[in-house]
This record gives sequence, C-alpha cells and structure tokens, in this order.
Amino acid sequence: MMQVSRPVPLGSVTIQDGFWSETLELVRKTVIPFQWEALNDRVPGADPSHAIMNFRIAAGEAEGEFSGLVFQDSDLAKWLEAVGYSLKTHPDPGLEAMADSVIDLIAKAQQPDGYVNTWFTLKEPGKRWTNLLECHELYCAGHMMEAAAAYFEGSGKRKLLDVMCRYADYIDTVFGPEPGKMRGYDGHEEVELGLVKLYQATGNETYLNLSRFMIDERGQKPYFFLEDWERHGRISHWERTLQAREPNLAYNQAHKPVREQEVAIGHAVRAVYLYSGMADIALKTKDAGLQAACERLFRNIAEKQMYITGGIGQTFHGEAFSFDFDLPNDTVYQETCASIGLVFFAHRMLQFGAKRIYADVMERALYNSVISGMAKDGRHFFYVNPLEVQPEASEKDSGKRHILQERPQWYGCACCPPNLARLMASLGEYIYTQSDHAIFAHLFIGGIADITMPNGSVRLVQETGYPWNGKVTFRFEPNDKKDFPKASFTLGVRIPGWSNGATLSVCGEPVAVAPLAIDGYACVKREWKPGDVLELDLRLKPMLAKAHPKVRADIGKAAVQFGPLVYCLEEVDNGANLPALSIEAKAPMKASFEAGLLGGIVAVTLEGARTTESDWDNGDLYRILPEEGALFAEKPVTMRAIPYYAWNNRGVGEMLVWLRVKD
Amino acid sequence: MMQVSRPVPLGSVTIQDGFWSETLELVRKTVIPFQWEALNDRVPGADPSHAIMNFRIAAGEAEGEFSGLVFQDSDLAKWLEAVGYSLKTHPDPGLEAMADSVIDLIAKAQQPDGYVNTWFTLKEPGKRWTNLLECHELYCAGHMMEAAAAYFEGSGKRKLLDVMCRYADYIDTVFGPEPGKMRGYDGHEEVELGLVKLYQATGNETYLNLSRFMIDERGQKPYFFLEDWERHGRISHWERTLQAREPNLAYNQAHKPVREQEVAIGHAVRAVYLYSGMADIALKTKDAGLQAACERLFRNIAEKQMYITGGIGQTFHGEAFSFDFDLPNDTVYQETCASIGLVFFAHRMLQFGAKRIYADVMERALYNSVISGMAKDGRHFFYVNPLEVQPEASEKDSGKRHILQERPQWYGCACCPPNLARLMASLGEYIYTQSDHAIFAHLFIGGIADITMPNGSVRLVQETGYPWNGKVTFRFEPNDKKDFPKASFTLGVRIPGWSNGATLSVCGEPVAVAPLAIDGYACVKREWKPGDVLELDLRLKPMLAKAHPKVRADIGKAAVQFGPLVYCLEEVDNGANLPALSIEAKAPMKASFEAGLLGGIVAVTLEGARTTESDWDNGDLYRILPEEGALFAEKPVTMRAIPYYAWNNRGVGEMLVWLRVKD
Repeated sequence: MMQVSRPVPLGSVTIQDGFWSETLELVRKTVIPFQWEALNDRVPGADPSHAIMNFRIAAGEAEGEFSGLVFQDSDLAKWLEAVGYSLKTHPDPGLEAMADSVIDLIAKAQQPDGYVNTWFTLKEPGKRWTNLLECHELYCAGHMMEAAAAYFEGSGKRKLLDVMCRYADYIDTVFGPEPGKMRGYDGHEEVELGLVKLYQATGNETYLNLSRFMIDERGQKPYFFLEDWERHGRISHWERTLQAREPNLAYNQAHKPVREQEVAIGHAVRAVYLYSGMADIALKTKDAGLQAACERLFRNIAEKQMYITGGIGQTFHGEAFSFDFDLPNDTVYQETCASIGLVFFAHRMLQFGAKRIYADVMERALYNSVISGMAKDGRHFFYVNPLEVQPEASEKDSGKRHILQERPQWYGCACCPPNLARLMASLGEYIYTQSDHAIFAHLFIGGIADITMPNGSVRLVQETGYPWNGKVTFRFEPNDKKDFPKASFTLGVRIPGWSNGATLSVCGEPVAVAPLAIDGYACVKREWKPGDVLELDLRLKPMLAKAHPKVRADIGKAAVQFGPLVYCLEEVDNGANLPALSIEAKAPMKASFEAGLLGGIVAVTLEGARTTESDWDNGDLYRILPEEGALFAEKPVTMRAIPYYAWNNRGVGEMLVWLRVKD
Repeated sequence: MMQVSRPVPLGSVTIQDGFWSETLELVRKTVIPFQWEALNDRVPGADPSHAIMNFRIAAGEAEGEFSGLVFQDSDLAKWLEAVGYSLKTHPDPGLEAMADSVIDLIAKAQQPDGYVNTWFTLKEPGKRWTNLLECHELYCAGHMMEAAAAYFEGSGKRKLLDVMCRYADYIDTVFGPEPGKMRGYDGHEEVELGLVKLYQATGNETYLNLSRFMIDERGQKPYFFLEDWERHGRISHWERTLQAREPNLAYNQAHKPVREQEVAIGHAVRAVYLYSGMADIALKTKDAGLQAACERLFRNIAEKQMYITGGIGQTFHGEAFSFDFDLPNDTVYQETCASIGLVFFAHRMLQFGAKRIYADVMERALYNSVISGMAKDGRHFFYVNPLEVQPEASEKDSGKRHILQERPQWYGCACCPPNLARLMASLGEYIYTQSDHAIFAHLFIGGIADITMPNGSVRLVQETGYPWNGKVTFRFEPNDKKDFPKASFTLGVRIPGWSNGATLSVCGEPVAVAPLAIDGYACVKREWKPGDVLELDLRLKPMLAKAHPKVRADIGKAAVQFGPLVYCLEEVDNGANLPALSIEAKAPMKASFEAGLLGGIVAVTLEGARTTESDWDNGDLYRILPEEGALFAEKPVTMRAIPYYAWNNRGVGEMLVWLRVKD
C-alpha cells in the first residue's frame, strides 16, 4: 500500500534562512524584474527575447512579424509562473500590475476557438498541429497552464486560468482516444504537467484524463511521431529540408510505451518532464504500474546517469542522456533546466512516501547544478554547467564550444533563466511533505511552516546555518489559527546519505539515530507539544567523494564535498593547469567560513601537490620515466576549493571538480 | 650553411627485414590487388569506389554518371603511385598491365586542352576552377602528378607522365602571378608536391616555379579564398546552401603567408602536405626563410601537438589540429593520412641535415599510427586511430561516433588505404640519406643499400631483429658495379631519443657513443673498407613514457613503450573497464616474444591493480571516502600489453594506451 504524502504548500511556508533568503530576495528583486526587461527586449547587449512583442502583435496592439524560436511563448509563461509564486509569498502590486498587463495581452491574443500560440497564430496560421514532433505547440500550452495555475494561486485572479481552461477544453476536442481525434502528444513533454496543474486548480477531471491519455499513448504503435513526420512531408522545422532519416523516437522518449521504459534516454529535460508527468498521474490515479516505471527510471538516473552535482544530460548532442556510467566532465551538458526538471521529478517521487534517495537527489541538484545556473548578480545565467573547464578548449575545440567560459546575460533560447526563477520562487513547497500521521522534513532550510493535521494545526519552526553548519533545530510552536493537535504523529527528518555520525536530540535528550531510521529518515513519533524541539547535528566537515569504478571519467579521482555542496577548484585561486594538481586521500582538509568571499562561503583548504612544469622547458613532449628517482616531479601546494555553484563569479578561468588522488 | 643530404633512392635499397618484409609483401600481394578490386567496385559488402568507373565514363568507354566524392580521382592516383613504387622494387607484368589499362583510360579522359578531372568533366563541365576552396581540383591533379612520376620511375613508361605534364602545362596557363592568370591555390594542398615530383622527373623548372608560386601566394592579402567564396556565390559545395559565415581560412592554412605561420593549424592532412611542399621548395631553392618556417612548424607539432603514437589531428571537427598540449585520447582524430603526411614532412626535413628530432618523429609515426591504419589481413583499414576506445561510447555518444569499433573494408572517402599503400611501397627510400661525405641511417630496417659516393660506391648491409631486438649491424660490402671508395666518410646512425645506454662497436672494438654524437646521430668517420662492421645495441626493454604536464589528458599516466613501439591494453587480454587498471611506476615489466600472437610480437607483462567493482552492487553512484582503511578497493592483476599498431585484430573491445600510474 502506498504511503502517499503531500507537499506542505507554498503559502504555508515562510523561508527565513541564512543561505536561501538572500538568493530568493535576489530572484524577487533582481531576477524577476531583470527577466521582465529581457522579455521586453530592453536589456542592452543581450539577445532580444521578442516574447512579449510576439503577444502584442498577436493581440493586435503592435505591427510586425513573429520573432524568435517556435517555443518563444514559453519563456513568458515561465516568468508568469514565477510571478505567481512570488506574489503568493511576497505580495507586490507593481509586479502584479506588470503581470496583469501581459495577461491582458495573452487573453487578446487568444483565438476565438481558444487557441493560444503566437508562432502558429502569426507565422503559420494554417498549420496548427501539423508538426507535434518538433514545434513545441503543446509544450508552450503546458507552460502557460502552469503559469495560469500559479498566478491564480498567487493572485487569486482567474483571468489567465480561464484563458487556459478554454485552451485546454479546445485541446481536448483535438486530442484523445475517441474517433476523429488525434492520438497525439508533444515532442517536448510538458503539457502533461500543465494539465495536472489545471486539474488541481479547477477539479475538472477532463484535464487529468487528457494528461493521462497523452502519457499512456506515448510510444504506442503505430508510432505517432513517424506518422506525424510523414504527414508534414518529412520536412524538418529546424533544418527546413527534407530529412533522409526518420526521427529518433528515443530522443523524445517515444520509442516504447512509458511503462516499459527501463533507462532514462533522449533529451534530458524532456525526459524528466515526462517522468514528472508520469509521477503526477501515478499519484493522482494510484497507478502502481506507472509508479514502478517512475521508480525504475529515477533509479537509473540516480544510480547510473547523474553527475555528482545532481545534473543530468551527459552530451551536447541532443542535450541528452548518453548511457550508464558515461559521465564525462569536460564535454558534459548538464543543462540548468534538466537539473530543475530532476528536482521536479524527485519532489513528486517523495509524495509516494519519504525515501531518502529522492530527497538526496533533490538536494544534490538544488545546491549544486541548479543554482550554478545563475551568477551572484542575478543577471547572468548558465545553460550548460560543466565540471571541468579549460577556456582555451571552449574557444578552439568545436566539441567543447558549448562549454561557455562565462554566464551570458540572456539566450536566444532562454529556457533556463525563467525556469530557475519559477523553481526559486516556489522553493517553500519543496521543504516538507505531510500525511495525516506524519510530517517529513526533506530540506534543511530555515523558516516557518504552518501545517494542518487531522486534529489541529502545528507551526514548525526550522532554524539552521546549513549548509555552512550542520546544526538544525526543529521547534513546534502553536499556530495562531487552530489548536495544536492532541495526538501523536511522526516528525521525520532526513539523514542525508553522505552524512556520517549525525546526532539527534529530542527536547534536549540525546536519542540514537539508527533505531529511528526508516528509509533514510529519523522518525520520531510522539505526542508533540508546543515548545518541543528536535535537534539534528549533521556534524559537517570536508569530505572526499568517489564515483563508481565504472565511471571512467572519475576513476582514481575524488571530489570535495562539504555537506550537500560539491566543491571545485578555480584558476583564480589555484593557478592554471588544474589537472596537474593532486591530493593525498588522507591529507587534512580545513573548512573555514570566509565572509568576504563570494558573498560569504565556507572555503575548503587542501594540502596536495602540483606536477612541476619548469623542468620541461627543453621541448620534450614525451619522456621515458627514469628507473630511479622521482618519476613525476612535484612540489607541495595548498589549494583552495569553493562551492561549485559559486564558480565563475570572479572572471574567466579554468575550473575542476574531480581531483586526482594518490591513495 | 645547410648540410643538405638526399635520400638514398628506392631503387637502390632492398628491404630484407623480419618486421617489415612481411608487411611489404602483404601490401604487394594483398593490399594493392585488394585495392584494385575496390577501385573497380568489386569488393562485396564494401562501399563502392566508383573511381575507375568515373574514368571509364569520362573516356567514353562506359555510359553513366559520375559517382562518389569530388576528389574520387585521387584514390586511383594514390593506387597508381603505389604500383609505380612496387614495380620499381618488384617487377610484376600482371600488375603493370592493370596499371597500363587504367592509364590508357586516364589518357582518353584527358580533355583537348590537357585537363584531367572526372568530376568537372562529367558533372560540372562549365565550372572548372570555380571553387578552389572546396573542390580539390588541384589536389586531384597533384596526386596524379605524383603517380605519373612514380610510375615513370617504376616502369620507365612515359605515358602518364606525358599526360600529367600536358595537364601541368595547362594549369600553368591558368595560375600564376602574371596578369590575366588566377592568383589562386587549392583548398587542399597537394599539387605543390606533385609539381615538384614532375620537376624532378623532367627537370622542367616551370613546374618548380608554379609550385613555389602557390606556396608563396598562400595566405597573402587580399585573401584568394574569400574572393573565391564570393565568386561561387557563397554556396558551399558540401552543404549545397548559402553560407552565412565566411570560410575559416586557418582551416586551409591560408590565414597568413606561410612564412609567418607559427603553429600547425587547421585540417591536419592539408597542413602536413603544405609543410612538405614548403620543405620541398626550401630544399630545391635553398630558401632559408622557408626552411625556418618549416622547422618552426615541425617543432610545434613534435613538441606540442603530436600523440605519443606519432599521430596528429586532435579533433574530429574539421579533422584538424586543435591547440598546444590538447591531446585527448578518446575523441582524437589521428587520421592515418595525417600520420603518413607527417612521415613525408619529417623525411623532407631530414634532407636539410640529419637531426634526430625528424627521424624520431618519422619512426614514431611509422611504427605506431601509420601501420595501425591497416589490419593484419591487409583488407581492413582505419581512417581514425584512437588511443582510448570504449565500444559503447562509439555507439551511443555522438561525440565519439567517429571512433570506429573495427577497421572497415573500404570507405566512401577512402583516402587512407591507398595512401598507406604508397608509403609502404616506397619505404625503402626513407631509411638512409646521404651527402658526398656521409651516409645517415635513420631507420633500423634490415636490407641492402647500394650507395654511390664521389669516389666509388658502397654496399651497406643492415641486419637487425628490430623492433623486437635492439641489435643492429651495419656491414660494408663491395658493390658489384663500382669500386669501393678509397676515402674517409662518415656513417651516422641514429641514437633514438627514447634509448638509454645504447652501445656501439666498430669492427668489434667498443666505442663510446657520447663523444660521437652529433644532433642525435653517432657519427663514425673513417676510411671504411669492405667487411667493416658497425654494431649498435639499443638494449631494448619495456619502458614507461610520460607526457608533458600540460597534457591534461595524460597527467598522472604513463604509456608502455618497447623500442619505438607504443603499447596498449586490449579488453580481450585484460577484461572490460580498462581505466580501472593502474600500475606502479616501478613495478617490474617483462617483455617476451610470443610467436603465436598477432603474427609474432613482443608482448609486455605488467603487474598492477584493478579497482574492484564487486563491492559497488548496492546502487551507489557516489560514496564518501572512509577516513580509515583502503580508500579505493583494489586487487592485484597481471596485465598484458601489445603493440598499439596491432590492436583490433582480435574482435571488438576496449583499448587503452595511457595507464594510471601510482608514483
């Protein structure tokens, strides 16, 4: 039997946290307004977005032609979704007015039958639904549905929700199992998630059923995408030419029915959006078979295809998964959106019941590959997040040209920046889940959560200096609206997989962790009372992590970790040619909080060695090792490692996560 | 002052060698006949060549359309060149008749004005010289000129030579510095070499001057290729579409005058063909500035951009050089043709005077990346020669798809197999150079050389079991045609850069090597007499080589070497996941000749360790290193390394050259 739990929703959680509050404020005060400027094409020196202008033209408020990519609408949708979440936690009439103005545009751009998409409205009016494989038509719809649900929740205003329900109703007349409808689905999964959000906002089961149809239909024979490809004359939207080869169905996770898929495959963002949609449907419909597929796919990612930074998508070619244990560091893709999608997937998996594997992955992505997508200034963003950078290679090796040397301000394809904004603005709902009998704390983020239980309501206050400090205090307080429940329930706190020697006390009394552990959570069941305190100490210190020996890119190497944070070396601290550095596995490491560095971080100091270059000035490229004496001449060095997410905030230079270790 | 020396020519050298004779016989008895079948489209299961059929059609002897690539003619030209060399050393009336038949075709396909090119004759008759940048028109001419000179030398027949002189005369009316002529040159250098060969065969300085013009003109402003690009409407031959970006001049070594070029750049084969042509002109015209540019470019390759296997071209993207010290092993290109071109370049540089750097590079390429291009059966060929192979990556990672898992029989673009044939068939002329005062032995290849000196002639007999054995005997014998010279002269034998503790004796008397060494050659000057013997013992044993610390792909690693041979591990001997293996730098290595293995090779046995995988079956992808105990669990293993050139003769599997070393 499933022990389903539900997230403690965004509106019930207030984040007050040393690490995150600043970032969330940056998102609110800088990122969201900056992206508004970007969407309005007003950022000097950045690629113009065109997203709002396209809607103005489609609404009849401006003259001109569609500009940008076929999925340009989705950038605006993700921004609106972020605004919705932000308004929920931080009302802001000015921001709300901006959003309302653009929602008016969207409503005016909606076609009489409910259709909303500026590309097909302006550029290819007769060609709706003619290239589901490539044209992101339902993808854009899905993002706008998510925006509509978030904006309704954040502002209480129904206008965008009504627009998108009308659109969804129309989509339901086009797609479905009934005769005369298309048995189709989108090349880029997303509408499956959007429809579930609409269902949650409205209770209308039509939307849930349509989402389930698209998930069930995906990968069935005859293959919809092959028929679609024939239907649009084998002309590629992207290449604009006749395609000799038939589409690679696995790239779109449409090579077999989703329940039969064993291995995460294809475009990484598409994949985790699909898996998130599958989890949504499995949760809402209690579909054990679909849940099993989700568990299998999650395990494949977490156990075989995920970087230590929580990122996914090993290859630039198709922005895709490659194969098990293939995790190259210097040609990696690890798109910011894919890490975000993995957080979505993990968050849904946690709702089947608290299991550490899901929260560990969620945290790993969140503290590393997600927030590395944004510069400290909130105005520059990475799309690709490498684990090893040599600027000269990015410049001169075409196979590494996707590894940018610096975060740009914006992108022609700007999927990642607003995706980051919407995740950050909704971070509150990723911290806890609850059932009628238990509250689970998955993330260590300080703040206040008001949680309704069957027999009352509790206020749970989390206080912590995490991730710089491993002490986390959970304190129950009375809720000002309802009585504190007079019944026993469980408070489960995650003991991260990387931790060693965590200690726990309840109301000042030490308790052993191991006997309490269920699926990686220390579960304390009692009749909690206001004032009761659970204290967890993860006893953070610098650690070295190693990878499975089948990961050939990392063999003989280790990565520095401090709590959930993966560390890296930068050239600015350690000089050029970082691979010439090595560490002893047992050499002491020292962590120290440096308030003036990168906005205040714990830096880790390591003692190690650097292979010397000075004795190689005679032009030798290769040398025979001497039979006696030192084989590789080295000198001792002290290295400084910083958190991976904070790299590239001090100019262009080399960066390296995995260090050679002498065992 | 230049100490110019000249090669002891092919016709004066007879190879009788334990290592090479078998390979050369394979080339003669299998490779050349096999390629004749391939050029006639008669190899079942292989891509058809079309090369001879195109000439049959152009000659009016068959109906049909041109098939193949724009440079298809060159495959036939290289085969004819190989036949020319082969006839020189091993007359063969049957082979000669085949060649004559195809030369008749070429003569019939020649246009009234002298033009020879089946693509432009058959497919684009009005478009001669309209796309020098991309269409290999002069490249094909150059290869056929080399063939003409070789066939004239090998058979004494002038027919092809006359055809190509007529063509060259016509080309001279089209290109040159004079008003009304094109100040042009080819996107793929080669005609520069062909023209020098015609000059050598005929003494006609027109050809030398035309070659020099094209070399001098290359990279001058205004850039010919930019004008050419505008002239052909910016339409790419390959893409068949309008090009948004202007051509990358450095890809064709045309970004600056050749005398100013500092770094080997662009398409690797083009580059070394250009540099060989530059060396030819510098040698023939005693141009010190051009010689200095050649030396600089050679050093850049040898000291910063060459694999340990003597291969070049680090990247698939453009089959090109990338940048200094960038030598990735698993995405490498190292095209067989590029290694062959490097041998050409080195061989020419040696003619400026014997310097070890040139012969060391020549030998390194020859014994490793050149002959790895061919399977032991003489019927399968590599175009790309990787230093690390994981078959699953070749299959599933688009960035490694060029790393083939097996040598195919033939290629649509089959430049490499006949290139190998022509080098192997002319190997005799790479062994010695001579001046009036000295004979230099660059390669240790057994056989007889008849060498004309100012005051007579010597027969120099080399006997050796190299590379399996380091003993090399040079014995003077009387020549049956001329008197043995009664004058002192120098015999210089190369002491390879990798050797350590070589010993030398002259007529049984040990002599110290160091005092005799000039530029890496032990030079013994005396009045040599018939029966005199110089014995060199390189005292071969397994060695480990390391790379410059700036080579990040190889840092902390070593490669096994035995004499000039670089070694590799194969999965068939050592199991899967080769990177999990490591060696101790001082662990004993054992060499043993295994007669039954791969046609008889010295295998090297190493003691080392393998990181264990069996303790990783709980699904962990990453683990924190324990504070106590073994950090990376390992078990001792014995490994077997085989010569790199012989890899992939026992089925598909992993292969690895650079091994992790524990210092």
